[in-house]
Amino acid sequence: MDRPIVYDLNTLNEFCIGMFIKAGMSSEEAEIMSDTLMFAEMRNVKSHGIIRLPTYIERMEKGVVNNKPEMKLINNPFAAVSMLNADNGMGQVAGYKAMKEAMNIAKVYGIGMVAVKNSNHFGVASYYSMMASKDDMIGLVMTNASPAIAPFGTKAPLLGTNPLSVAVPAKYKKPIVLDMSMSTVARGKIRMAALQNKEIPLDWGLDEEGNPTADPYEALKGSLVPIGGVKGSGLSLIVDLLTGVLTDTSLTGEVKNITDMSGPSKTSHVFIAVNISSFIDTDVYKKNVDSVVNNIKSLPPKGNNEIFMAGEIEQRLMDERRSLGIPVEIEVIEELNKLAEKYDGTKL
Amino acid sequence: MDRPIVYDLNTLNEFCIGMFIKAGMSSEEAEIMSDTLMFAEMRNVKSHGIIRLPTYIERMEKGVVNNKPEMKLINNPFAAVSMLNADNGMGQVAGYKAMKEAMNIAKVYGIGMVAVKNSNHFGVASYYSMMASKDDMIGLVMTNASPAIAPFGTKAPLLGTNPLSVAVPAKYKKPIVLDMSMSTVARGKIRMAALQNKEIPLDWGLDEEGNPTADPYEALKGSLVPIGGVKGSGLSLIVDLLTGVLTDTSLTGEVKNITDMSGPSKTSHVFIAVNISSFIDTDVYKKNVDSVVNNIKSLPPKGNNEIFMAGEIEQRLMDERRSLGIPVEIEVIEELNKLAEKYDGTKL
Repeated sequence: MDRPIVYDLNTLNEFCIGMFIKAGMSSEEAEIMSDTLMFAEMRNVKSHGIIRLPTYIERMEKGVVNNKPEMKLINNPFAAVSMLNADNGMGQVAGYKAMKEAMNIAKVYGIGMVAVKNSNHFGVASYYSMMASKDDMIGLVMTNASPAIAPFGTKAPLLGTNPLSVAVPAKYKKPIVLDMSMSTVARGKIRMAALQNKEIPLDWGLDEEGNPTADPYEALKGSLVPIGGVKGSGLSLIVDLLTGVLTDTSLTGEVKNITDMSGPSKTSHVFIAVNISSFIDTDVYKKNVDSVVNNIKSLPPKGNNEIFMAGEIEQRLMDERRSLGIPVEIEVIEELNKLAEKYDGTKL
Repeated sequence: MDRPIVYDLNTLNEFCIGMFIKAGMSSEEAEIMSDTLMFAEMRNVKSHGIIRLPTYIERMEKGVVNNKPEMKLINNPFAAVSMLNADNGMGQVAGYKAMKEAMNIAKVYGIGMVAVKNSNHFGVASYYSMMASKDDMIGLVMTNASPAIAPFGTKAPLLGTNPLSVAVPAKYKKPIVLDMSMSTVARGKIRMAALQNKEIPLDWGLDEEGNPTADPYEALKGSLVPIGGVKGSGLSLIVDLLTGVLTDTSLTGEVKNITDMSGPSKTSHVFIAVNISSFIDTDVYKKNVDSVVNNIKSLPPKGNNEIFMAGEIEQRLMDERRSLGIPVEIEVIEELNKLAEKYDGTKL
């Protein structure tokens, strides 16, 4: 395999913004979209990075996502909550606006919760939770997703991996950023093992009968293992009940995958911002988070490895790649350049 | 072993209320305490049931818990959040008051969040989340707990099992009630295996070196396995950051176990109520939850087992035991009667 080419952040960002605009998106929305892709690239969450650009643009071309959505907050008399109708627009744009609103509410009321209906795949959940942590708040984000996990006691995938992200600011340490799905691993890891014809650990996937399997092909026909069995299955269901069901967008099992071009994906998200200063002096809090990090890092390590906090590796990479650039695989560049050609854009 | 004796709910309840009062608690607080114990007994969460009564009373006798706490809401200008200082009183009393306040807030603002500082063990988390679901709200509850789980990459237990409960109302179906800790199993299960000299599954406990072990004695010296490894470890930390750290009560690792009589346990909890009607018609929501339950129950089961939703088995038992009574083991009765003798109370 050829070595990846390193691009600086601006070059990649301008490329993505340009492509979204050429495909019909407003520049405001294109900037948000691209920013979330850059976030994923910098944090090395490649599955949600620029590799997704062609898929997002295909969704625009096919009209399964709304290029000119009118996203509106739905009025209600309850001051600390709101609902955003994403009008089948991009999940990233909806997510950005919804978390902003949750934070605005939290500034006044201490906590703000915004649910988003009629949305689409929103990329990396921690993009939104970290909007809050950057502003000295605790951010909580959940989204539903297409079927992948069998509800406990069944053998049919109906529940999504339904990611949850929580971001907490620290004073001098890096923020603590949990960003996790409810399955032990992502389906992509099983797909990779299948491509390489490798066996998978027994806690990754279940076959069609719901039994653990080392065969990645059997697992791909079956379902993903939820963390803690009945616990992960329960957590995933709770996310559904707080997103798709609370916004009356979709019941469990009704969300379409991002690659399914047969119609809107009917995704929903929920964003909660907790204003730390409404409980405790923010500086005291952040210093205490630093102390917790120090305490954990001074524990005896398992093996000789460095002890990392949730989100720390990603944050380090982010700091590094922001200045040193982002490596992109040749195959990805070729695909992006094909897209550029199609839209008469400047190639990478 | 002798067969357990079945007591009716009132008899047990009156017994517990009486004991708490004799030990120095106000009748209002004694009623809440006993109600949470009855809740645990009815749902067959024996580890949090009347078997705990002697421990709670010992804590009162030794003065490590405050018998006459002045629990006060701390004023702040943020209308949707509040902080309750439990004044080192019983966690159950604090939890009851805090969830009530969260619900009152949610009725007006759509969501309410109440954090509790300087508290103690609060029993079963779902007692509080279900206060919300009974009132057509979604209840979320978290509490920190004494060290049991090693932070990812370390081999020293510092994190608590840090339970999370979420309760969601349904229309004709039973409410969906998730009530889970962040470890694959409770330490009690490993203790039981040790007593019976049985091996334990490798995903239950880690030895002092942080390696999986089948030996329950090694696991008891080591730590509990977090669900999903790094994910459960991260979830547990987040609960700490939303409870002990947010209320400035205790940092990660500083909460004392309920059986540790050396001082206040410095426990914290957080209670969130989400007012469904601030997002969607409550009846529509609850009917949709019913549909989700029906959809899951009509999936192909793994094996020939009935498919249960989170909290369903417990709710069935609760309905049953409310009318048919609660079985109590002879050994437990004997212990409770010893306590009754000590306090000149009527025996069971």
